[in-house]
Amino acid sequence: MSGGLVLLMVGDELLDGRTRDTNSEWIIDRTREAGWHIAQIEVIADDVDLIASAISRHSERATAILVSGGLGPTCDDLTRDGLALAMGAELEFDTQVFAHIEALFVARGRPMSGSNRRQAMRPSAARVIDNPVGTAPGLLAEVAATPVALLPGVPTELKAMFEATLMGQFAPLLDGSAVPMRRLRTTGIAESTLADMVEDALSGDGQLDLAYCVSTWGVDILLRDPDPARLQHLAAVLHSSLDDLVFGERDSSLPGVVLEHLRALGQTVAMAESCTGGLLGAALTSVPGSSEIVLGGVIAYSNALKESLLDVPAGLLEAHGAVSEEIARAMARGVCARTGADWGISTTGVAGPGGGTKEKPVGMVCVGLCGPGLDATARTLRLSSGRDSVRRWSVATALDALRRGRLTWLR
Amino acid sequence: MSGGLVLLMVGDELLDGRTRDTNSEWIIDRTREAGWHIAQIEVIADDVDLIASAISRHSERATAILVSGGLGPTCDDLTRDGLALAMGAELEFDTQVFAHIEALFVARGRPMSGSNRRQAMRPSAARVIDNPVGTAPGLLAEVAATPVALLPGVPTELKAMFEATLMGQFAPLLDGSAVPMRRLRTTGIAESTLADMVEDALSGDGQLDLAYCVSTWGVDILLRDPDPARLQHLAAVLHSSLDDLVFGERDSSLPGVVLEHLRALGQTVAMAESCTGGLLGAALTSVPGSSEIVLGGVIAYSNALKESLLDVPAGLLEAHGAVSEEIARAMARGVCARTGADWGISTTGVAGPGGGTKEKPVGMVCVGLCGPGLDATARTLRLSSGRDSVRRWSVATALDALRRGRLTWLR
Repeated sequence: MSGGLVLLMVGDELLDGRTRDTNSEWIIDRTREAGWHIAQIEVIADDVDLIASAISRHSERATAILVSGGLGPTCDDLTRDGLALAMGAELEFDTQVFAHIEALFVARGRPMSGSNRRQAMRPSAARVIDNPVGTAPGLLAEVAATPVALLPGVPTELKAMFEATLMGQFAPLLDGSAVPMRRLRTTGIAESTLADMVEDALSGDGQLDLAYCVSTWGVDILLRDPDPARLQHLAAVLHSSLDDLVFGERDSSLPGVVLEHLRALGQTVAMAESCTGGLLGAALTSVPGSSEIVLGGVIAYSNALKESLLDVPAGLLEAHGAVSEEIARAMARGVCARTGADWGISTTGVAGPGGGTKEKPVGMVCVGLCGPGLDATARTLRLSSGRDSVRRWSVATALDALRRGRLTWLR
Repeated sequence: MSGGLVLLMVGDELLDGRTRDTNSEWIIDRTREAGWHIAQIEVIADDVDLIASAISRHSERATAILVSGGLGPTCDDLTRDGLALAMGAELEFDTQVFAHIEALFVARGRPMSGSNRRQAMRPSAARVIDNPVGTAPGLLAEVAATPVALLPGVPTELKAMFEATLMGQFAPLLDGSAVPMRRLRTTGIAESTLADMVEDALSGDGQLDLAYCVSTWGVDILLRDPDPARLQHLAAVLHSSLDDLVFGERDSSLPGVVLEHLRALGQTVAMAESCTGGLLGAALTSVPGSSEIVLGGVIAYSNALKESLLDVPAGLLEAHGAVSEEIARAMARGVCARTGADWGISTTGVAGPGGGTKEKPVGMVCVGLCGPGLDATARTLRLSSGRDSVRRWSVATALDALRRGRLTWLR
């Protein structure tokens, strides 16, 4: 596909690992709903010739170009110079912009450095984009009849200026330029099993543009189709055949869905965490307003705390060991009794890398659940691939159990 | 700076938000110690002409080129074709590679698709790079005397092949090509205050190449200098003047440093969390081996649990409210008494976006600490900018208190 928006992210610090480029991710996310086609991303060094040649080259094909970074006051900040070179123009001093920068320094009671003069330089044909949060103004110009916008690289400034000015400027050119897409978010199912189910469900539907993407909570299905009606049809078929494996679309989060569900039921929850060490509570309480539904819980990393704070019988620990469905059930029951919550959810497992045995290897995790009209139940997961991943999938499984009101097998 | 490694990341899914490019980040991190200079990163669509022209253009300046993605079996996978076009060569069928792919499918008991033939195509002058974890082999060729490597985009495959083969191949060309860098990690100090201290400390040292980068735990100082001896001198000056504001270098994590410190002292810790909801426990238990030092704790989101699980007196809650230094102290004391840990650390605050009042606005957080020979103390933080950020800085402050064995003011 030709045309679309080209992103040029300028800065040595993006290439040597000092800073990660989060701006291009943010722009992709921010413009997805409006359907902007992002044609290419380049991360380039602070080099005036590289900046100018990238602008010139992309101006031949792109619908619009956004250059981010390199607008600061120091001699490394060469994006203005690069734009001027690409335009075949000179930089000129803008007294109005300079007065604005000067006023900002006065308002903040800080001395202005001579190098801030650089920030008031622009090609005369370029228009200024106001910066509501910092000193560096943005610029909007044309190269080979293609609009080129310059924004600062500081994320807060870029975002503010993108929202306030640039999105509106570029909308008529870019809205609806991308292939329409739907993102169906699933949990409780492995990627390969999911792919088989999707293939079966859509086997009569001809050529498909499908991708899978592992998320924090499970696997997302990404479905694209140039025909919005066909896309709608395909998504509906998937929703109906995958049923409650899909917990939401787009940016729904699994903790958010769980809390909405419990809020609708007027029920509360408490956590009893061993191997997840607080990660389950952190996930649930990451949602604004969670304090009405999440009472709290116990992080019982040691066996002694499982006994003293969750009333797990010492004999049960001796008989089955801490990582067992018996203990997961007792923990869920214990945290309900101690807190008065409607639902109790528990995790106990071997997160690794150490601590595994032949009977209870690294990645073995038991999740327990009890709730209204449900005697405590538990399931054992056998997860692989590292401590972080074991803890994260344990949390996803626990959240999914709360969403469904029952524990299911990971498919 | 000319030369260096150019990264070309190929795939529509990297541009439309279906997949985030994590490979370039990983390559930057992986090669930092060896000092590879990364000259440029391009994220480009599945388009044979774009791929070929990017390879040709960069072959004029780059020391080496790594192309990732587009080596799968489908008709979207055009990186092999792009390489052939840039080389002015034809793709030829490699019977040996095909036999290898066929054997893999037999071993896995899966039927081989006709399209897998594509994966055995290569320009005759290109050498095969073995793929130890998937079907797509990599390729190594030359364009305008510049080495060009093709690796799959699947992160596990890319990483395995990069480590096993490519890093060794490119090392003689790229080791030591970047400007040497040090990363000093600080916590407990605001970026602007830190910048003033750094400027004062290094004021006599002439031109500096400095950057600041906000991390999960605080602010990192990034210092570059072409002269390793001068870099060593500047880093030593900073270490001495910033003293214990610096908790480590490079990839040290604050939870890791805290646990090492407590392990050396033979002491244990327990958490009493309100506004952080488990995030502090999750941070501490993210470190392998933490179960010897972290006993566990209580997530007391509701006031009732602060009373019943942490023995916070009801009268104290009524008199001061849950978000107060009095309650933070009582929570720290309570979790020590309940768990027998040497150190108790607590958080209680208004994470927002709702729940703020004039006296106790969003971002007000009290952190409490008690420990060996230390009666319970508390400090109040006034944080800004969003629920996630308030919770994260509360955790950083709590961890820093454990590292120092005392609560300090955030500078």
